Amino acid sequence: MKQSDIDDFFTFLRFKTIATDPAYKEDVVACAQWLKGYLEEGNLEVEIWETDGSPVVFAQNLSAGPDKETLLLYCHYDVQPVDPLDEWISPPFEPTVRDGEVYARGAVDNKGQCFYTMLALKHLKDFPINVKLVIEGEEESGSVALSKILKEKSAELKADYLMIVDSGFEKIDEPAITIGARGIACCQVNVHEASCDLHSGWAGGIAYNPNKALAKMLASLHDEKGAVTVPGFYEGITPISKAEREEIDFTFDAAYWRELFGFEPRWIEKGYTPLEANWLRPTLEINGIWGGYTGSGFKTVIPQTAHAKVSCRLVPGQDPDQVVKRVEEHLQSITPEGLKTTVDVFPGHGRGFRTTPHSRIVDLMEQTYTGVFGKPCKKILIGGTIPIAVELGEAAQAEMVLVGLGLPGDLIHAPNEHFGLDRLEMGYQTILQAFERFR
Amino acid sequence: MKQSDIDDFFTFLRFKTIATDPAYKEDVVACAQWLKGYLEEGNLEVEIWETDGSPVVFAQNLSAGPDKETLLLYCHYDVQPVDPLDEWISPPFEPTVRDGEVYARGAVDNKGQCFYTMLALKHLKDFPINVKLVIEGEEESGSVALSKILKEKSAELKADYLMIVDSGFEKIDEPAITIGARGIACCQVNVHEASCDLHSGWAGGIAYNPNKALAKMLASLHDEKGAVTVPGFYEGITPISKAEREEIDFTFDAAYWRELFGFEPRWIEKGYTPLEANWLRPTLEINGIWGGYTGSGFKTVIPQTAHAKVSCRLVPGQDPDQVVKRVEEHLQSITPEGLKTTVDVFPGHGRGFRTTPHSRIVDLMEQTYTGVFGKPCKKILIGGTIPIAVELGEAAQAEMVLVGLGLPGDLIHAPNEHFGLDRLEMGYQTILQAFERFR
Repeated sequence: MKQSDIDDFFTFLRFKTIATDPAYKEDVVACAQWLKGYLEEGNLEVEIWETDGSPVVFAQNLSAGPDKETLLLYCHYDVQPVDPLDEWISPPFEPTVRDGEVYARGAVDNKGQCFYTMLALKHLKDFPINVKLVIEGEEESGSVALSKILKEKSAELKADYLMIVDSGFEKIDEPAITIGARGIACCQVNVHEASCDLHSGWAGGIAYNPNKALAKMLASLHDEKGAVTVPGFYEGITPISKAEREEIDFTFDAAYWRELFGFEPRWIEKGYTPLEANWLRPTLEINGIWGGYTGSGFKTVIPQTAHAKVSCRLVPGQDPDQVVKRVEEHLQSITPEGLKTTVDVFPGHGRGFRTTPHSRIVDLMEQTYTGVFGKPCKKILIGGTIPIAVELGEAAQAEMVLVGLGLPGDLIHAPNEHFGLDRLEMGYQTILQAFERFR
Repeated sequence: MKQSDIDDFFTFLRFKTIATDPAYKEDVVACAQWLKGYLEEGNLEVEIWETDGSPVVFAQNLSAGPDKETLLLYCHYDVQPVDPLDEWISPPFEPTVRDGEVYARGAVDNKGQCFYTMLALKHLKDFPINVKLVIEGEEESGSVALSKILKEKSAELKADYLMIVDSGFEKIDEPAITIGARGIACCQVNVHEASCDLHSGWAGGIAYNPNKALAKMLASLHDEKGAVTVPGFYEGITPISKAEREEIDFTFDAAYWRELFGFEPRWIEKGYTPLEANWLRPTLEINGIWGGYTGSGFKTVIPQTAHAKVSCRLVPGQDPDQVVKRVEEHLQSITPEGLKTTVDVFPGHGRGFRTTPHSRIVDLMEQTYTGVFGKPCKKILIGGTIPIAVELGEAAQAEMVLVGLGLPGDLIHAPNEHFGLDRLEMGYQTILQAFERFR
């Protein structure tokens, strides 16, 4: 990879595109503009689709002509928030190379994967199939804006294949195609009692501390088997077929996991292996909890309100709106008498899905990865979410596949996210060679 | 009260004396210096006792002579932290008068009460008894520094009576003397699993979320009766005697409470009235809880660590060090296997106490309040803590009483803390008239 390409990648990484936080709106808009300029240097027509949220960058080259098939590629330029900031070794928006790895927020998710995809398209002179590329700016907060314009843009998005470049492998020498992902539904829970903060000396023993109430409520959301206790939570799940299961590699390497993350998984939902629990079972997580005094030293307060951010990862057959409604109703029903629970539902929901394990695009990418890596390519699912995936696939009427070169140790969503320069090059090769296979 | 006195009070309030947070060290030191200068304007010898924490201001007038008794007064100039800052109507360190109430952090606790005490001493020309005044700067974080020098300063502190001016009434027309307070022991709980933050998509179902572990652990600390489940928590408690109980007014006005704080207490420990629960029973409160993402929008993280600040209010007979050790051991014992709990014990512990209901100082202050307010004076306990009280009483070898004009609606420790200018005047009169009764 040329130094000028790395410079371009670093420019891309420096945009603080934390779209979930309105404070970064300017960076989001500037990044979309930069992407347009960058893509226009290649053989692509580029437009920006304005939305009521982040702009969507759309590029295409239809030179293959109406007789040829069309491939729609999907990436995103928004990134996760960066806190806890003090745990970053180098600043999250100042890309820094250490031991061949680029450290920056978005290095992998998804700017790294987006960049090698763009680089391949830019270098492509002769397009064997028609190509469309959509790069959105709200994946990390639920793709709300893109979701709203899908109908209106369905003609532009129409394609035979949808390739989402936002996935990865378990290990670098075990290439894999992702044929399904979980969905998501998120909400914020707020538990209130008094009309003001109280002093824990003169109110302790009289008030019901909302921190305690919230802890009790959240603690009750899983039973002793690790299953979610919200009534109806598991309703409607489409079981995995025997044929699907046989295609998917559920091998979990506990030693590798321990080496990467410093612990041994011991609390898997009873009756499931780790990857079954992560891929085939919906989960409910407390992504954030806060209430009262959290600063230095001590403050003996009984807070007026305590909060939690709760997300559910969903599997095929579950309706995100229904699930979050059930969580809300259940939390209301278990609120201690006299206290009040309010639930703010976040709009960015997404359905879980599994694609057919043997579509043309799946087979073609399997061959591509096998070729590039010189190793047999596995089929896997992911426990994560591409919120727009199902809707985008429906709008484009396309067969879907998820690809990408992320690795579990890349620390996506966490401090010190990083992506190897070697993988940037391999990703570029993967996209180029996939096009060759379309000839 | 003269405008110049109010100006002095406001100068006192403007010092940001949040001693628990090292960031405010300069304000703490400057405030102690200002207090020295202010007290020197009166008929008092003043010194600053340097400590390894906040300086202690000590003033005295021993002109009554060795044949007369000695009264030691105690106040503090440090204040509680101010967050949540955005709930303050006017800035916490810019005192603002609305409807005759001074709004500022420390307006009551304890700068208001300290100020009227100083003002009375300053105006006193002829001292009927010997007077000593200690104003410390770490009451809100456990009086650690003062505690360390008590032995060394026991000769200076020696007194017949110790009057702690840091208490209050339930209602302004129901004056009360406080004859006991609860103690305190505080710690921070940290629950860890992975060596880094995890993505809740690809780790959800595999990792045990520390937020969930913490919620489960904290939720288990109270049983269905509202009692604390930590083994040995209630050991050693000195029961209240019949004679003590008959002196103390346990009347609780639920309607008044609801009006002030917007809720009806329904979760009192079974078998106790609200004020029995607050005054005679030890409690365990979660003063703060935090883990994962707590900012705007959403971040689907499984955090590496979750935290809580836990305080126990203690009653006579409980040893703070023992209690916090038992809390620590219990939390360790209920940590889910494979996770790790660390507990940081805060040094500022204090024992609970009850004084004799009919000492000379208690009777004298009872008469004083009855005189100033023209109403019978009750005897009460408080659920709050004066961490140094027991040790200071022992060092001074003095009979103790707690007095003050705080009211439950003053919002001490909370946003919009306030104190009436009328009460500032009444407090001043109370101290002056108490001295008259010593003649």
